[in-house]
Amino acid sequence: MHKINPIEKFGLFTERWSPKIVAELNGQHVKLVKSLGSFPWHHHDHEDEMFLVVKGPFNMEYRDAGGEHRVTMNTGEFIVVPRGVEHRPVAEQEAWIMLFEPAGTLNTGNAGGEHTVAKPDWI
Amino acid sequence: MHKINPIEKFGLFTERWSPKIVAELNGQHVKLVKSLGSFPWHHHDHEDEMFLVVKGPFNMEYRDAGGEHRVTMNTGEFIVVPRGVEHRPVAEQEAWIMLFEPAGTLNTGNAGGEHTVAKPDWI
Repeated sequence: MHKINPIEKFGLFTERWSPKIVAELNGQHVKLVKSLGSFPWHHHDHEDEMFLVVKGPFNMEYRDAGGEHRVTMNTGEFIVVPRGVEHRPVAEQEAWIMLFEPAGTLNTGNAGGEHTVAKPDWI
Repeated sequence: MHKINPIEKFGLFTERWSPKIVAELNGQHVKLVKSLGSFPWHHHDHEDEMFLVVKGPFNMEYRDAGGEHRVTMNTGEFIVVPRGVEHRPVAEQEAWIMLFEPAGTLNTGNAGGEHTVAKPDWI
């Protein structure tokens, strides 16, 4: 049993949109992601996702019958994106995010594409 | 879908050792707890718990065949306590903790007692 310092872990990699696993509990993974720009629109059929902002600002865009929406978050804030909801992260400056989601959740969900990381590394 | 600001949520209550639920995802709850002093030793038979320090310092003590151990964390750091491990949070100054654990996890685990909160409130 040891403590984890997310800021130190973020210092270990530079790739963007490439989640790194830092912990596992109850079948869930805790992942770190560096974000910059707009990620592809996607959803997850069976997984809810939590995005906790370690370094903001950071935007979560989502769309539903009412159109497109943007939620802007600062450091320390978080949002839960329920399964089935079309969403995309958007960061105008590099943002650092801690993710909580079921182990095996694919970062690009149903969309696939070049950003897909099938097997994130542990750091 | 809306963002959650843990610091603002911590401003809504003063009780210590009384977890408040702020989000639910994948059968897990995100809870906020204010800690001061030593919580009773306990374990959880079936639940892993994650303690993320929103305002530190904060200590997690645990004991195993090797004796008693203390892990001291500062703001932003976290620890995962696996199911079955005897542990107790200890805070020498009031510390603010964000917990991730399965919905229904009892704060006092197997120990019970006066600190038990059977049904935490949402805030």
